[in-house]
Amino acid sequence: MKITVLGCGRWGSFHAWYADHIGHDVTLWGRPGSQHLQELLETRKNEYLSLPASISLTSDLKAALDAADICIISISAQQLRSFARQLKAAGFAPSLPFVLAMKGLEEGSGKRLTTVMAEELEPAVRTAVWVGPGHVQDFISGMPNCMVIASADEGLTHFLVDTFTSPLIRFYYGQDLLGIEIGAAAKNVMGIAAGMLDGAHLTSLKGALMARGAHELSVLVAAMGGQAMTVYGLSHLGDYEATLFSLHSNNRRFGQDFIEGRPFKKLAEGVSTTEALLDLSQKYGVELPITAAVHAIIKEKKDPHEVLKNLFLRSTKCE
Amino acid sequence: MKITVLGCGRWGSFHAWYADHIGHDVTLWGRPGSQHLQELLETRKNEYLSLPASISLTSDLKAALDAADICIISISAQQLRSFARQLKAAGFAPSLPFVLAMKGLEEGSGKRLTTVMAEELEPAVRTAVWVGPGHVQDFISGMPNCMVIASADEGLTHFLVDTFTSPLIRFYYGQDLLGIEIGAAAKNVMGIAAGMLDGAHLTSLKGALMARGAHELSVLVAAMGGQAMTVYGLSHLGDYEATLFSLHSNNRRFGQDFIEGRPFKKLAEGVSTTEALLDLSQKYGVELPITAAVHAIIKEKKDPHEVLKNLFLRSTKCE
Repeated sequence: MKITVLGCGRWGSFHAWYADHIGHDVTLWGRPGSQHLQELLETRKNEYLSLPASISLTSDLKAALDAADICIISISAQQLRSFARQLKAAGFAPSLPFVLAMKGLEEGSGKRLTTVMAEELEPAVRTAVWVGPGHVQDFISGMPNCMVIASADEGLTHFLVDTFTSPLIRFYYGQDLLGIEIGAAAKNVMGIAAGMLDGAHLTSLKGALMARGAHELSVLVAAMGGQAMTVYGLSHLGDYEATLFSLHSNNRRFGQDFIEGRPFKKLAEGVSTTEALLDLSQKYGVELPITAAVHAIIKEKKDPHEVLKNLFLRSTKCE
Repeated sequence: MKITVLGCGRWGSFHAWYADHIGHDVTLWGRPGSQHLQELLETRKNEYLSLPASISLTSDLKAALDAADICIISISAQQLRSFARQLKAAGFAPSLPFVLAMKGLEEGSGKRLTTVMAEELEPAVRTAVWVGPGHVQDFISGMPNCMVIASADEGLTHFLVDTFTSPLIRFYYGQDLLGIEIGAAAKNVMGIAAGMLDGAHLTSLKGALMARGAHELSVLVAAMGGQAMTVYGLSHLGDYEATLFSLHSNNRRFGQDFIEGRPFKKLAEGVSTTEALLDLSQKYGVELPITAAVHAIIKEKKDPHEVLKNLFLRSTKCE
């Protein structure tokens, strides 16, 4: 199968490596002027992996789209809307499936990424998401994991699972696209909260964070029309190992650095997701106390120790 | 309030320390000849903590029971039945509440610990459980956590929560005693499974373990007449940080040592719980694939790598 991967950062380059690793014919695109692409063109390596010669590298979007049977997109979630406009301008076959290998919600609208795609391309655009646990570093070292692919079109889900399954990644068929997208995005917020607990020497409260975090999101997902239990599957709870505990987790690291007053290069993806979730909280009338606490610490500059202790330790209640 | 703690191992001595710490009048009992008690009598210390002089130490069970307004029991779960017979022989006021600060199910019968108490004492015995996350080492160093108290008698639950709540431990009222007891016991089995994944260099699969482990137990709890969602609260999922990730976790350590072929002093509590859960699995017709895998590795000597990979990575399915 001919696979094009759009975006050549950590996850984009991994998706290209993986598709090649399981025998597909791969093109990896980076935007003209991308430092990541430049590095790969010069050395065929980045911090995480080496790309075999069989993978084509290009900055020509039209050519990358024309070459594809399936197109994987892995860019920053907040850039998806403008990127979708670029895709429309470049043109592609109406049947081309897009797989969003990214996690987030649009800041300002709270919209899911598949919604952004449908709005900017056309309602019938064939879009799926590929989410769940796993670190690039672990996969490259041969450590397997389970992930999930979901779309509104069951036939497309099965086609993609058949195309990408291997002993390194075993897929589950996602059956609740809404719940999977919200859960996958929101786990980054819980990752920031976990890092904040680490930074505040309250690591032991990560257990309560897992139970209460998944709970608040399950209520939101149900209010939005999804299945509450989806949050307890691979896309959210199943990603907690990678997000709340691993040293590789960017969002966890960001939360800890923030509390410890260490400088950080850029806001983690979870920060935008926090804003988007609070919009949804208001729209659907669902309280999200952990998400609101993360927001209060980062955006309202509230005292982290006080906010975190209040969150878990103030009142006695029923579960 | 006069609090007696029966059992002076790691958790028993902590419960005595904690009840004293929050201002109660405490008696700590150990069986005659107990090495733990001997050590405490001689040094007032153990590996984890120092007991203030205000705590009375005794090996006289009758005196310890007579002194109590509330009695906390913290011994090995498999010894509870014979210990309950000792309690009956010693005699105690019918209104005395017992709090089981221990996690397990009876091997051979699959019975819950409150059931064992009711069978050996009398059906109306006032018994509650006190479970949830937290390590003795963390509490002693001042790191707070959330825990849960549950009983069949709502008034007793509220009385106990009022008696024991403090800034160090904040309680939730447990409302599903069955689900809480099964979940609290079963988290030790998931702890062993987590250690096995660490030992097999499959740590990244702990995410899938969390999602699938909680799922299989929620199905069992529902089949037994409890609430499926209880498993996703503090007693089970909320205890995963302490059990699946912490280096302090005995069950996780046992699983890792088992896989790595390192000698271990004694079987972890979770091993007995595995047997008990498989009895319940058969009795209620509910498949428990992770529990069965732990059993296959420990008791049937199956190849751990093969069993663990088959568990998570064999077939493609719906979540």
